[in-house]
Amino acid sequence: MTINLDLVGKDLKPIEFSYTEKDVILFALGVGAGILPHELKYVYENELEVLPMFAVIPPFPAFYSFMDEDGFSINPVSILHGEHYLEVYQEIPLKDKVVSYPVITGIYDKIKSALIEIEATTWSSNKEKLFLNRFSIYVRGEGGFGGERGPLRHNIELEKPSDYTFSEATSPQQAMLYRLSGDRNPLHIDPSFSSLAGLEKPILHGLSTFGFAGRAIIASCCVQNNAKIKNLKARFSNYVYPGETLITEIWEHNPGVIKFQCTVGERSILCLTNGEAIIG
Amino acid sequence: MTINLDLVGKDLKPIEFSYTEKDVILFALGVGAGILPHELKYVYENELEVLPMFAVIPPFPAFYSFMDEDGFSINPVSILHGEHYLEVYQEIPLKDKVVSYPVITGIYDKIKSALIEIEATTWSSNKEKLFLNRFSIYVRGEGGFGGERGPLRHNIELEKPSDYTFSEATSPQQAMLYRLSGDRNPLHIDPSFSSLAGLEKPILHGLSTFGFAGRAIIASCCVQNNAKIKNLKARFSNYVYPGETLITEIWEHNPGVIKFQCTVGERSILCLTNGEAIIG
Repeated sequence: MTINLDLVGKDLKPIEFSYTEKDVILFALGVGAGILPHELKYVYENELEVLPMFAVIPPFPAFYSFMDEDGFSINPVSILHGEHYLEVYQEIPLKDKVVSYPVITGIYDKIKSALIEIEATTWSSNKEKLFLNRFSIYVRGEGGFGGERGPLRHNIELEKPSDYTFSEATSPQQAMLYRLSGDRNPLHIDPSFSSLAGLEKPILHGLSTFGFAGRAIIASCCVQNNAKIKNLKARFSNYVYPGETLITEIWEHNPGVIKFQCTVGERSILCLTNGEAIIG
Repeated sequence: MTINLDLVGKDLKPIEFSYTEKDVILFALGVGAGILPHELKYVYENELEVLPMFAVIPPFPAFYSFMDEDGFSINPVSILHGEHYLEVYQEIPLKDKVVSYPVITGIYDKIKSALIEIEATTWSSNKEKLFLNRFSIYVRGEGGFGGERGPLRHNIELEKPSDYTFSEATSPQQAMLYRLSGDRNPLHIDPSFSSLAGLEKPILHGLSTFGFAGRAIIASCCVQNNAKIKNLKARFSNYVYPGETLITEIWEHNPGVIKFQCTVGERSILCLTNGEAIIG
């Protein structure tokens, strides 16, 4: 790999993304929606509302396309979604042709890995600013180039018990379904590919887990107050295999200010940590 | 309702249907595929094969559009898919723009109901005959008009035990997923609509159950011989609620000649009866 630090600040190619109500529903099913009574609106076109986590989909191609830049030479199998931050500015249209503008906002030296941060702001077809995503992407084995460490983010211990706990099984086909929303990386479906990556079997997309956690927050904290998720972030700490149970623990010490984490029930390991959200 | 018997033999409007590999995968997930090791090919674009039951999708609009014919005046909520017959002539393309030619092939007087049979042959864009579907549609409360009874089809008792038994849970979101393949009838998702129809909750599409049964036949009888389903038929005898378990019992007294039926595990009621298939 080569990493050219001058790429910080570089605008990547804008990403156009057209979607319809069908795509909105398909995404919702990909993050497990439709199971709770208040979720009918996420999966039924007659009363449709877009899940805020759908916002991760339109700019997602930047997660791979940044590697096309001159100045990077990266082996695609070495990249890993480390953290994700999402900020939603307004109701997401039911269908639209939106444009995302990704920018490389940081390249950090995490000693073992390089960390590349990409921020993408997404605009509606009528020029409204819809949402922002920040992808924190680890390039394994490519640290130690003498760059800045960047912000240190240790896993934050949260004081038990949580205010809410939300437990839900993913489906054995969860990744097969989620990938139809865009991220077709074979790591999430092809056993021969995942075994090359040293994994027991294909893993669920981190952003599908992120969607499950967002739904847990909506169910626990938003529905009764008619609140919306304004922003949502988490670190992807461990793999989840499709079919495993996600236990989302949620703290709301101050109204509207959420902390959360997500555990794989079957293996008692944290898969999402440092989770934070603002609702209102 | 009015039913004009002269409509027998009438060609309905041809139905164009464009689909891609994504639609093929979405359908496969809608009938539960992807859970068995040999099913990766039905849900993964890199080695994709089309499930034969996908053939029910392209001509499906005829199930509703026949009511637009002059000579029919039918309340859409009174129609019910009674039986389905499918015949597959060759490998279904991974993507294509196909055309189906539906014909009204029979109108029968079942005393309580009218029975309308529609046959549709579907052709590929390069003029190959791909498959045929026969929809047997009951119009409840509209029999007794003095027409022919048509072929009598009693439920056939099958001698226990079966040669194979295949048990599988549908997902609580099965109908939400299946309907993205085309049949958006609110009966399958909207509790206010299904309660108007006198049902406890929305029901699974009969043709999704039909797809599960086809997968059970493939898993039990086709995989080890590399055989294909040539034709498949069944009667929809009872509702299935999403999340219920389907137990498919399969008899293969003569090689390649299959009889089957499907029971809802939780309620011990038959949901598919008179099931027959030819494989080879």
